[in-house]
Amino acid sequence: MSTASKTQAAPAERKVIDPDTYFDHNQPPANLQQAHSAVAAFIGAQEAGRPIVLVTSGGTTVPLENNTVRFVDNFSAGTRGSSSAEQFLEAGYAVVFLYREHSLQPFNRQYSHRTEGLLDYLQPDGRGGISVRPEYKERVLSDLNRYEQLRARLLKVSFTTLADYLFLLREISLLLAPTGARSMLYLAAAVSDFFIPSHSLAEHKIQSAGGDLTLHMNQVPKFLRPLVKVWAPACFVVSFKLETDPGLLEPKARHALDKYGHHVVVANLLHTRKWQVWLLTRDADPCLLQISQDQLLRGHDIEQDIVAELVRRHKVHASAA
Amino acid sequence: MSTASKTQAAPAERKVIDPDTYFDHNQPPANLQQAHSAVAAFIGAQEAGRPIVLVTSGGTTVPLENNTVRFVDNFSAGTRGSSSAEQFLEAGYAVVFLYREHSLQPFNRQYSHRTEGLLDYLQPDGRGGISVRPEYKERVLSDLNRYEQLRARLLKVSFTTLADYLFLLREISLLLAPTGARSMLYLAAAVSDFFIPSHSLAEHKIQSAGGDLTLHMNQVPKFLRPLVKVWAPACFVVSFKLETDPGLLEPKARHALDKYGHHVVVANLLHTRKWQVWLLTRDADPCLLQISQDQLLRGHDIEQDIVAELVRRHKVHASAA
Repeated sequence: MSTASKTQAAPAERKVIDPDTYFDHNQPPANLQQAHSAVAAFIGAQEAGRPIVLVTSGGTTVPLENNTVRFVDNFSAGTRGSSSAEQFLEAGYAVVFLYREHSLQPFNRQYSHRTEGLLDYLQPDGRGGISVRPEYKERVLSDLNRYEQLRARLLKVSFTTLADYLFLLREISLLLAPTGARSMLYLAAAVSDFFIPSHSLAEHKIQSAGGDLTLHMNQVPKFLRPLVKVWAPACFVVSFKLETDPGLLEPKARHALDKYGHHVVVANLLHTRKWQVWLLTRDADPCLLQISQDQLLRGHDIEQDIVAELVRRHKVHASAA
Repeated sequence: MSTASKTQAAPAERKVIDPDTYFDHNQPPANLQQAHSAVAAFIGAQEAGRPIVLVTSGGTTVPLENNTVRFVDNFSAGTRGSSSAEQFLEAGYAVVFLYREHSLQPFNRQYSHRTEGLLDYLQPDGRGGISVRPEYKERVLSDLNRYEQLRARLLKVSFTTLADYLFLLREISLLLAPTGARSMLYLAAAVSDFFIPSHSLAEHKIQSAGGDLTLHMNQVPKFLRPLVKVWAPACFVVSFKLETDPGLLEPKARHALDKYGHHVVVANLLHTRKWQVWLLTRDADPCLLQISQDQLLRGHDIEQDIVAELVRRHKVHASAA
């Protein structure tokens, strides 16, 4: 029978290309230049001393064909990233939000990715106008007021594929580098570990008449290494580790910290990620952040706790710099 | 180097399992019973003689892990299906809309899958209330009125995975079967050609430390065959064929017609699908439907033309039954 399995071939690390080779062999996204200009202007417009954060959000796609009909995707609606972006805005940060196209957006996330759409929140007011349905009015007004108040400090940049994401991540990291410890990189996007090099892609839609399909994918280079060492070495870097096997979570999070030398890993399990995460640093025990089911149901997002704790640690980091 | 290639192994058709085996080996979706009840009640509530259409929309996912972090997806926002559903409603049909979760919805499609969300269309009215921003007001009011007028004849059922889709397609087809020629099946969803049997899935998130990844996928059984022959033999069945290689489009569409014996194949190419399609039937030359770039820019959807032509043919089919 078919199976999803890794090849048991040659040792792994030797086969993984380095990040520069990846950039040499892949096309930058169409919005790269425009994103560069927008982010540069946004950083320049912030008052001195205001902290800045890059929040990445949503999953990357890996196309299986050049004329893309199919792709491998990573599970992520963008809940963590979009909610965190709101918390950083509330905490006074300027936020660059690098998100997967059509994933959840700060503030608007409450009203999308649902069965309901815009028209379900509205009704004709009987006088030729439109009003918000009474059952939604209070919540919409409150969210609208928060949004109007904070949106000037929010800049959104979108990606779709893994390559888009990596080019944009490098570009924005390099732009943030001169701001040093004042900036945080909060890497909540679900980034593919595997890719098909673009020159090896099938040109057209893969045909099924030939029977089974076998896909060979390469391991994605570890971009956290140049990010921490080269692109933005003075920034405060937070990465995320999502696993489904509880036994692997801490060792893998610890391994990432040791290997890349960034500041915090937020470790979480797929099925408990909405109420339980661990913050790992090199020099301390894991810090558990947890909310109750009751808090969750009453609309308390765990991102409030994650961001509050990271803002505190970022301040310590920045004042020591 | 890595490559996306098909195995050149044994002849294909012999290896493809039959649809019943697929259903025996996969789990039905959690919403199957609820969908059954809702669709049965919806069909029963329609006045005698009102035509009914099942519109399928959006792409199916194929999970790579049982605790799903990654999946193979088919490119489809659901534009064709959601726009077509509106046209069928305007033409007097009752519409069962079987859609991929979070894909575009009839009427609401104009306001989702965009950078803007609900809050971007609204503003505080300065008197403690909320109003629609003036630049959107006319369009929103017009769409809201259409939606309010037609929504009673629309029933929505959602799917995510390939298995969800196939179980729901069978269930709804069987419920429509007794309505015979009065019903149309309009199969616009982008359905995966390959899958990984659930008992062969990796239990946990596939680890990247081992190096490259090789995925073996089986060909999905051709469900159009039992749908036409067994599930809903008297219904008017329209399938879609999307290709990227122009040379393959007509032969493949023609092959499907000959093989499955349904009524119409709507053939389209990935890059021209928004302004050009061909309707193929067994006994006639392909019928080209085309709109100009200018029409497209002025908001004319080609689905208006596709649905108008299919409604005409469905009437002929129903009166001959």
